Amino acid sequence: NFLFPSLEHQHIRYNPLKNEWVLVSPHRTRRPWSGQVEATAVENIPEFDPTNPLCPGVRRSSGEVTPNYTSTYVFTNDFPALLEEVPKPPESDDPLFQTAEARGTCRVICFHPKSNVYLCTMSIEEVKNVISEWINQTNELGKKYIWVQIFENRGAMMGCSNPHPHCQIWSSSFFPNEPKAKGENQRIYFEKYGKPMLMDYMEKEQQKQERIVYENDEWVVVVPYWAVWPFETMVLPKRHILRFSDFDEKQTHFLADLMRVLVAKYDNLFKCSFPYSMGWHGAPTGAYLNSDQRHWTFHGIYLPPLLRSATVKKFIVGYELLAQSQRDLSAEKAAAMLREQSNTHYSLL
Amino acid sequence: NFLFPSLEHQHIRYNPLKNEWVLVSPHRTRRPWSGQVEATAVENIPEFDPTNPLCPGVRRSSGEVTPNYTSTYVFTNDFPALLEEVPKPPESDDPLFQTAEARGTCRVICFHPKSNVYLCTMSIEEVKNVISEWINQTNELGKKYIWVQIFENRGAMMGCSNPHPHCQIWSSSFFPNEPKAKGENQRIYFEKYGKPMLMDYMEKEQQKQERIVYENDEWVVVVPYWAVWPFETMVLPKRHILRFSDFDEKQTHFLADLMRVLVAKYDNLFKCSFPYSMGWHGAPTGAYLNSDQRHWTFHGIYLPPLLRSATVKKFIVGYELLAQSQRDLSAEKAAAMLREQSNTHYSLL
Ligand SMILES: O=P(O)(O)O[C@H]1O[C@H](CO)[C@@H](O)[C@H](O)[C@H]1O
Ligand SMILES: O=P(O)(O)O[C@H]1O[C@H](CO)[C@@H](O)[C@H](O)[C@H]1O
Repeated sequence: NFLFPSLEHQHIRYNPLKNEWVLVSPHRTRRPWSGQVEATAVENIPEFDPTNPLCPGVRRSSGEVTPNYTSTYVFTNDFPALLEEVPKPPESDDPLFQTAEARGTCRVICFHPKSNVYLCTMSIEEVKNVISEWINQTNELGKKYIWVQIFENRGAMMGCSNPHPHCQIWSSSFFPNEPKAKGENQRIYFEKYGKPMLMDYMEKEQQKQERIVYENDEWVVVVPYWAVWPFETMVLPKRHILRFSDFDEKQTHFLADLMRVLVAKYDNLFKCSFPYSMGWHGAPTGAYLNSDQRHWTFHGIYLPPLLRSATVKKFIVGYELLAQSQRDLSAEKAAAMLREQSNTHYSLL
Repeated sequence: NFLFPSLEHQHIRYNPLKNEWVLVSPHRTRRPWSGQVEATAVENIPEFDPTNPLCPGVRRSSGEVTPNYTSTYVFTNDFPALLEEVPKPPESDDPLFQTAEARGTCRVICFHPKSNVYLCTMSIEEVKNVISEWINQTNELGKKYIWVQIFENRGAMMGCSNPHPHCQIWSSSFFPNEPKAKGENQRIYFEKYGKPMLMDYMEKEQQKQERIVYENDEWVVVVPYWAVWPFETMVLPKRHILRFSDFDEKQTHFLADLMRVLVAKYDNLFKCSFPYSMGWHGAPTGAYLNSDQRHWTFHGIYLPPLLRSATVKKFIVGYELLAQSQRDLSAEKAAAMLREQSNTHYSLL
């Protein structure tokens, strides 16, 4: 119960998706901050920059010219972390020195030909085009790869080196740690309770009405009970689906609506382009396409670093890296702060 | 084998302590960087700052005055994430909304009365005093708490808000995720092979001579085979010990030597005050003091964020947070780069 006063005191909360705990210390929000302040995000991005390789008609470092695209545009990353073909690493029977093969491909998806727009200022049709591209890419890459990770680093604070609106897809022959663990914990829950964990979770959050940021006909966005980042959110479907390939037109439409609103709320909170890393997790693909994955629920994750203002972030450092995640602001308070923001981006008001 | 050319190509490596994999993409070091550059660390810190609460004789926000200490100085954090006594959180039988009690205490340890010195410029006797304080604190807090986490965030980039040389201790009534998982994996290894995992690992690293940064009579520091951060290192004992309480005088002396050299090498690499989070992991304390923990090996972990220069860090963001850790520089190359640095800090040369 959110109103139970002891949740205003420090406690630990369990994350059933990761089988891990997070330390919550709400009294620590009173701490003054005299540490590093971040640069404010650049706000005056030109619509077109002839030196920006993601803009239509500009030559990239690979020598290729980005075409005069009018909607989304997808290309292979010029400096990919994953290449399709590489020599096999040596085999080792030593349990302390294990290496395995990794193949994959990294792509970039431009959201829009203009640099000075973003999901919260693009039209709903334009955002739907982005989602359709995510569905197409998952279908195509999922034939070959076990895991297709779509993610976006928004803002220089989150390592984004190009201000043009875009996201990335890294797909791999290996099943990465994070979604693999989530899959195992969802399977254990399904075997025990006979229902997908995240569908149960979504329904209970709807009943409790304590951590919901926004919902529409098809989707709910909550600050998860076990959130680590100050304004972390999770996007959950109302109808059970496993992956992007299961989307119908109505889910695409309402996800576009939700993304526009969520990003507007984020930006409105501190009146800035809110930095974050975000991405989508669903049932694995490739060889897993023919196996029973009903325990999986498709969902989105937003991990924004800001804590107190446009320039003061939460540092995930010493204790957090070496011992356990720790947060100051409670999940309930963060959800209330986002919920009360306007659904329309401040630049459009 | 380090010389096997396929380790110059992308592959995944296994971390047996965490039972997780890391993606290694050495070819990606060729990527140009046009993203965020960090502020350079402030170099001209005065020896004494009358407004700095960690300096001798200065009043802290709690109202207390920091005494005129001459060696180390320990006090309870004025804005602790963990308090000793708090109300118990409500019980829940819902597996998706689990909360548990967390009690603890947070302390600060000043290394030295002067603000403008650090471990690599302090005398070996002064560094030994810091280690002795770590031993005392672990002994005292370990009577009451399951976990005593000593850690340091060095530099504003790693969330440190006070330039005076200091570290922190957060001890807790709960066993944090990270060391708990390490304990479980060390136990599994011990049951299977009859030896402590990290003692085996230390010996094999000594044989291979590929990732050693520095060693002396009692300690070895390596870039672990499964390192995530570009210049991550691990400090391992040559004689098996479980925790700080097991230290003898010789181990204290040689750990002081190693820490001075390691930090000098870090600072010499990019000629800056090298930011990092670091800390120590050993067998749990409190109720665990009377149980068999022979599978544990005491060790230190250094996690520095810099990748290419004093101002360009590795961003641990989208793919890393949502899928799996990824590194560009190979562990072998990072070890070689640190190894060839002088053992004496550049400011003393
Ligand atoms: O040293 P401080 O100011 O208490 O805080 C610093 O270290 C803590 C423990 O790693 C983190 O929770 C904070 O985000 C960081 O700023
Ligand atoms: O988008 P880029 O420039 O390829 O790279 C960015 O995202 C990657 C995936 O999260 C990270 O590995 C990099 O550290 C970050 O700078």
